[in-house]
Amino acid sequence: MNLQPIADLVSLCAAKGVKDAILSPGSRCAPLSLAFVRHPDIHTRTLSDERSAAFVALGIALETRRPVVLVCTSGSAAYNYAPAVAEAYFQQLPLLILTADRPPEWIDQWDGQTIHQQNLYGSHVKAAFQFPDSFSHPDQHWYGRRQVTEALTLAKAFPPGPVHINVPLREPFYPDAAHPFHFQAPKVPAQSLRGQLDLCAEDRERLKGTLQDAKRVLIVPGQQSPSPVLAGLLEEIAASRKALVVADSISNMQVPHALTLQDHFMGELPAEEAPDLLITFGKSLISKKLKLFLRAAACPHWHVQEAGYVPDTFQALQMHVPCHPAAFLRFFSAQRSPQPEETFSAWRALEAHYLEKIQADFVQRPFGEWTAIQRTLQRLPRGAKVHAANSMAVRYVNMCGRIAAEVYCNRGTSGIDGSSSTAVGAAFSTKDTVLLVTGDLAFFYDRNAFWHNYPMPNLRILLLNNHGGEIFRKIKGPSEQPELEEYFVTKQRLNARLLCEEFGFQYLLVHDKEALEEALTLFFQPSFKPKLIEVLV
Amino acid sequence: MNLQPIADLVSLCAAKGVKDAILSPGSRCAPLSLAFVRHPDIHTRTLSDERSAAFVALGIALETRRPVVLVCTSGSAAYNYAPAVAEAYFQQLPLLILTADRPPEWIDQWDGQTIHQQNLYGSHVKAAFQFPDSFSHPDQHWYGRRQVTEALTLAKAFPPGPVHINVPLREPFYPDAAHPFHFQAPKVPAQSLRGQLDLCAEDRERLKGTLQDAKRVLIVPGQQSPSPVLAGLLEEIAASRKALVVADSISNMQVPHALTLQDHFMGELPAEEAPDLLITFGKSLISKKLKLFLRAAACPHWHVQEAGYVPDTFQALQMHVPCHPAAFLRFFSAQRSPQPEETFSAWRALEAHYLEKIQADFVQRPFGEWTAIQRTLQRLPRGAKVHAANSMAVRYVNMCGRIAAEVYCNRGTSGIDGSSSTAVGAAFSTKDTVLLVTGDLAFFYDRNAFWHNYPMPNLRILLLNNHGGEIFRKIKGPSEQPELEEYFVTKQRLNARLLCEEFGFQYLLVHDKEALEEALTLFFQPSFKPKLIEVLV
Repeated sequence: MNLQPIADLVSLCAAKGVKDAILSPGSRCAPLSLAFVRHPDIHTRTLSDERSAAFVALGIALETRRPVVLVCTSGSAAYNYAPAVAEAYFQQLPLLILTADRPPEWIDQWDGQTIHQQNLYGSHVKAAFQFPDSFSHPDQHWYGRRQVTEALTLAKAFPPGPVHINVPLREPFYPDAAHPFHFQAPKVPAQSLRGQLDLCAEDRERLKGTLQDAKRVLIVPGQQSPSPVLAGLLEEIAASRKALVVADSISNMQVPHALTLQDHFMGELPAEEAPDLLITFGKSLISKKLKLFLRAAACPHWHVQEAGYVPDTFQALQMHVPCHPAAFLRFFSAQRSPQPEETFSAWRALEAHYLEKIQADFVQRPFGEWTAIQRTLQRLPRGAKVHAANSMAVRYVNMCGRIAAEVYCNRGTSGIDGSSSTAVGAAFSTKDTVLLVTGDLAFFYDRNAFWHNYPMPNLRILLLNNHGGEIFRKIKGPSEQPELEEYFVTKQRLNARLLCEEFGFQYLLVHDKEALEEALTLFFQPSFKPKLIEVLV
Repeated sequence: MNLQPIADLVSLCAAKGVKDAILSPGSRCAPLSLAFVRHPDIHTRTLSDERSAAFVALGIALETRRPVVLVCTSGSAAYNYAPAVAEAYFQQLPLLILTADRPPEWIDQWDGQTIHQQNLYGSHVKAAFQFPDSFSHPDQHWYGRRQVTEALTLAKAFPPGPVHINVPLREPFYPDAAHPFHFQAPKVPAQSLRGQLDLCAEDRERLKGTLQDAKRVLIVPGQQSPSPVLAGLLEEIAASRKALVVADSISNMQVPHALTLQDHFMGELPAEEAPDLLITFGKSLISKKLKLFLRAAACPHWHVQEAGYVPDTFQALQMHVPCHPAAFLRFFSAQRSPQPEETFSAWRALEAHYLEKIQADFVQRPFGEWTAIQRTLQRLPRGAKVHAANSMAVRYVNMCGRIAAEVYCNRGTSGIDGSSSTAVGAAFSTKDTVLLVTGDLAFFYDRNAFWHNYPMPNLRILLLNNHGGEIFRKIKGPSEQPELEEYFVTKQRLNARLLCEEFGFQYLLVHDKEALEEALTLFFQPSFKPKLIEVLV
């Protein structure tokens, strides 16, 4: 087969801003893999477990905010991407998935490694293309380039997400010395501007009155990547009491005047403390108590989101505001006067109370997972990024209140299947410390995250090993069933010592507060290899 | 929620012959899990990694030839089943996949652990149902039972395969002391007979002449489960020279008079040695040389298959014979006279030549993977079952010729993603020795196969550890690329010693022939724990 269309595909990816590709080994995908490896502007890495590879790509996309390419061979390899594809779809992260395939005539003929790869990911991709398998007409070359351009435009357009191109390939797969890949700059690469939706004059007129009149406005930012611009606007609003701001850790919007201890105090707030207008932007919340309070309150809810499907998380959606959150917050700030000091004072008082309480707790409580996380987060080095696994780990992190670090978690689907790999992808893409906070189930589930040959000197892992899904002991339903231990907690015996030996990680075992303090000093010192603290209590 | 429909679902599964369910932990799936655990006639096990859990279920289905139930929680858990679902679809194995889901109103509202679960597996299941989420009308109870009945009927009907029921569940998920599960025998459980398609009189008339006149008939059984009836019929045909029979190991039809060394000799056969009629039944072939020879020969090809999509593996399909292979072989035998002794004598001579050669090879060759496999298979205990991983392992096994054991391999999609888990599922379901023959990539890829608490005293593993995808060194294309080691072989450093320590396996390291002989004596002795021989050469 003529490999020029594959070289062109890769050239276009580079021209459209792709810098990273994660490959997995295989024969059918060789032309794609080789072209990515040989392109001077794209950094490639290879991981053998495609499930992990896809979450690593997702971690790179999170950290670099650029689309990341995935390349795998034909057959079930592509299906192992599916959990990360769903996560990328719901967490809105740009991936370009290139699955090598047999040509259409060999599907369903019982040839090896063939499944039905077209539209494999159903509604969990923004679009799915079938790359041309023949290039006898010039239009087919143009159509191939068209797909790549459109796929990357879509992957990046708000809301970003995964896009799939299935690439049928015929033998021979390997360029020979006489026909190396020729990367030519695409002649007219269609570019796309970012764009930013603003409110029109009519919208402003329509919203003004409500904003000016509302007595108790609560702003709750959902999960999102850090944004200094948004954080600045939000802090100005919170500091001047134009609204109360309550921010989960994964919102990355825990500005100085925001409340952050909702996991502790929401249960104590009486119903009359509800806001009369709730404004949200970003994606989902982690605080279940906050979510349940707002659902019960059923106050009018405005959700600010440029485009895409608009959810009704609190069953009280009154207004979808289709504009960029920064534009909305500027407009909001201009309309609002400070709320009187007593507005939401019950909220603030509870926040202050619990701030003291958790500090006292930390000193007085016997050593446990919760204190281990608190202390580790307090000692984070500057610029560190926290990756929390589902589900107890991220809940603990959220209970810590204000954290001086970016916080990430796979809350698109809230699975335990790729937390470690996502952290590995992030560690590949920054020189800052990446701290993975995880439980044992998520950790051992995704241990292939570490099965590769690339250095991760900046990766640190805090493993809370309670030998099972501890969360089930804490929920009323399962803890009352005789099957609790075998079928819910799913007792598992592994410790991380042997895993650390296998992968060359420094291993620090911690049973008490003093050992933790000592370990943490060593833990955050620079090193060539990853370090892991295993907390066994 | 009223849990009676879930109890009824489980009662129906039991009534329709389900004996095994593989569960994975979660909260949403609790009603399903608890009902299966508590049903007296269904054996349940729990595995935390859903990818592995699904391949374990597939291994149980292979061994027991009964449909196996899978239960997982909502979200990406269900997507981790996908690789095994595709394998079950193409390998035609009956699975009933029950995925717990949020009720429809909570999909796409950014609630935790929701993806688009309806029709999640696309065309890789025989059918996909959405279980009722409300039971206010009696018809809804009937409809739920109807789905389970139909799903199990379909899963078992030829060709067997996976069927998906997505089960929306509302809280509360846990039965309380006052309302335990009540398993009532289904009143009128619709049953299905097995049925067996035969040729009609008209078909017989139409085929008779060709069968009587064909000079050179070759029968090639494809991958299938062992069948003494079919093997007996095939042996009678081969022994009486009514046709030549060439059988791959995975056909489980290596009858005494069949040729089995095609991987060695097919390359040497001149084109005029082609048959004038090729007859196949069962699924795919493992021998690439045989496949390419037959494709080049392009002789008329009859494929015997009761139902389902009929592939044209050799691009020369002339006749689909829609009947049970046993019925066809009986008819065939009645029509045929013995072929003269010289027919196919070149094939037989080559078989005899290579039989001597590989025996001499075994004595003379330096120790290596190939000799390690040969010797291990020679020393298999009676009744042992061999599970070979993709792709070098199963090719080596096939090169060994006649093997005194059942041979299994995931050749539906030919992935490396679930070979170990499939062997574990088989080991759960028999008291006989289950030998997994695997390479290091497949082995470490699927190491979560062993991450559970169930004994596997009969599991034996022969691990050929060449620290990467050795197959790529043997193919011309990749071995000529400078990227061979990093991007194709994907060098990996792990040995199995630490894994064996983690999971409590007995570990035997082997570098030469003498050590292997000694290890094998120990290896096949009964024990409480699994044993692994790692061959490092």
